Amino acid sequence: MSRFWSPFVKDLLPYVPGEQPKLANLVKLNTNENPFGPSPTALAAIKAELNDNLRLYPDPNGDLLKRAVADFYGVDTRQVFVGNGSDEVLAHVFHGLLQHDAPILFPDITYSFYPVYAGLYGISFTEVPLDGDFQINPRDYARPNGGIVIPNPNAPTGCLLSLAAVEEVLKISPDSVVVIDEAYIDFGGESAVSLINKYPNLLVTQTVSKGRSLAGLRVGLAMGDPSLIEALERIKDSFNSYPLDRLAIVGAAAAFADRDWFEHSRNAVIDGRQQLKTDLQALGFEVLPSAANFLFARHPHYDGKTLASKLRARGVVVRHFDRPRIDQFLRITIGTPEQHESLLTALAEALD
Amino acid sequence: MSRFWSPFVKDLLPYVPGEQPKLANLVKLNTNENPFGPSPTALAAIKAELNDNLRLYPDPNGDLLKRAVADFYGVDTRQVFVGNGSDEVLAHVFHGLLQHDAPILFPDITYSFYPVYAGLYGISFTEVPLDGDFQINPRDYARPNGGIVIPNPNAPTGCLLSLAAVEEVLKISPDSVVVIDEAYIDFGGESAVSLINKYPNLLVTQTVSKGRSLAGLRVGLAMGDPSLIEALERIKDSFNSYPLDRLAIVGAAAAFADRDWFEHSRNAVIDGRQQLKTDLQALGFEVLPSAANFLFARHPHYDGKTLASKLRARGVVVRHFDRPRIDQFLRITIGTPEQHESLLTALAEALD
Repeated sequence: MSRFWSPFVKDLLPYVPGEQPKLANLVKLNTNENPFGPSPTALAAIKAELNDNLRLYPDPNGDLLKRAVADFYGVDTRQVFVGNGSDEVLAHVFHGLLQHDAPILFPDITYSFYPVYAGLYGISFTEVPLDGDFQINPRDYARPNGGIVIPNPNAPTGCLLSLAAVEEVLKISPDSVVVIDEAYIDFGGESAVSLINKYPNLLVTQTVSKGRSLAGLRVGLAMGDPSLIEALERIKDSFNSYPLDRLAIVGAAAAFADRDWFEHSRNAVIDGRQQLKTDLQALGFEVLPSAANFLFARHPHYDGKTLASKLRARGVVVRHFDRPRIDQFLRITIGTPEQHESLLTALAEALD
Repeated sequence: MSRFWSPFVKDLLPYVPGEQPKLANLVKLNTNENPFGPSPTALAAIKAELNDNLRLYPDPNGDLLKRAVADFYGVDTRQVFVGNGSDEVLAHVFHGLLQHDAPILFPDITYSFYPVYAGLYGISFTEVPLDGDFQINPRDYARPNGGIVIPNPNAPTGCLLSLAAVEEVLKISPDSVVVIDEAYIDFGGESAVSLINKYPNLLVTQTVSKGRSLAGLRVGLAMGDPSLIEALERIKDSFNSYPLDRLAIVGAAAAFADRDWFEHSRNAVIDGRQQLKTDLQALGFEVLPSAANFLFARHPHYDGKTLASKLRARGVVVRHFDRPRIDQFLRITIGTPEQHESLLTALAEALD
């Protein structure tokens, strides 16, 4: 470290995102991108905005996008916060809503950015173990806490919590903020946005990276009671007044407006997931039930890490986590039928 | 406030950006945007990237942009950090490099986001008064400090510090980070980037919003010793792995590569500044010497706030700061010759 660093920087353990390989021709099933492209009307909206007006600042509040989100979910724009990807939104949530005396709670197997945010803002946390079937049990969260963060579906397991189970968590912990991270909700889950008028402690975060195929555009959002949104706006206005560029605002707004494309795309992913699950099971894999755009699977006779590197050698990239309880699993993004064929061929060779 | 907020949130005093009016036909000279559009090759590069690949995450490191910046300035890519506008970059700088025991120093009249960042990260600060001519005097910074932040040219005064004066600050304070915020350096100043190999405590921040006419794209950068850059990368990777979208990376990289357009554009702004200064002086204004794309001017006989609202009533928006020492000034962005004509006509009426 350098003597010029703020002291806490030396203790940071930054998040490591999935590899973005710069080689062409790889079958890339490692970062849960949507195999189908974004809405053509979203691309057209961006193209229409691509002119000399880029010299001008964007709307600092992203009102056009907030209205599109509010229309889609039938909520008020004052219940919507937008940011530069759901990672930025989550960072503001940890900073502005989760710094309290008691430790915050999240699952022991979950999105590995949560402990990183906690480290960045000096927030203590307790990891709540998933049960033996890798499921979240709401009753396990019935303990004093400074906030709860639960991804639904969970990552990297893909397992879904019912809306009733989400409500159970909200009732168990009425005095702290419950964040439901719905990055993957579009692939079969039921959004908790329907509960935000009922529970002032509920904050739902989402992204356009997955269901709306716009990972390259960096847009995330949060929805909840206006007083929760106000905390996020205060953080945002003390950090960066203009988090979303002009192109991202119009592109994401158009993506929310294009419901047909969204339905078509997510249903194609769901179909692909069902087919791939069947195919993996036929190869002997145990596959966790998934409501996300990926599968979490392990083979009873083959080591996970070895399998991942054998696939990589054959040009297929999946994600492997070298961590307790899940080090035998592969996390495989749902791809196109052609990508699945490449994966299954490579797997058949690797299992040989 | 809400009981769900992290306690510090209630004390935040967020930054207030200049108005982004949603009315058409206003002569907008209030947020220092470049009156001339961005490089056509930048627009073309974005258009070429506007396709189904938006479903994929961007390069988390923005290597293409780092190389373009490194090429432009003749530095190493390890000396370059990129982020979502220089406001985000500055936020990471305050967080990762300026949290030390002693208060940080910045001018009393300067970019009003600095005290906001300090509030966000709990950093104490001392405002160092500009001299009677609104100039920064390096010797005033010879006191114990946890870091120094100096915009060059300063905002909202527009006044420039020579490279020798910057070096004097660096020599005075070798044990803390000196941030030179060069948002406006392209309009006549000499960048301190030439000093980063000599001073390991120097960090230079810049933006593509001004000199490169891309305020709508949200790209900022920092240059300095690799150990300073590493602190920023650690913060960034603990906050948001993908701060720049695919379109911003290619657009900003192309803007740095298009040196002819950049030279043409900034010289046009400099010419416009000289002409507008002459015209304002002819109306009786006192105009501070400016090396930025704006002028800071006051009239000996007319109140600044009144003038700003009279201009607004005539469809011309300039920035007025209701703050001690500068409340008689107007900050006027350099516009096109046509915009200047509208401004001067409205001013002549207002002064009547």
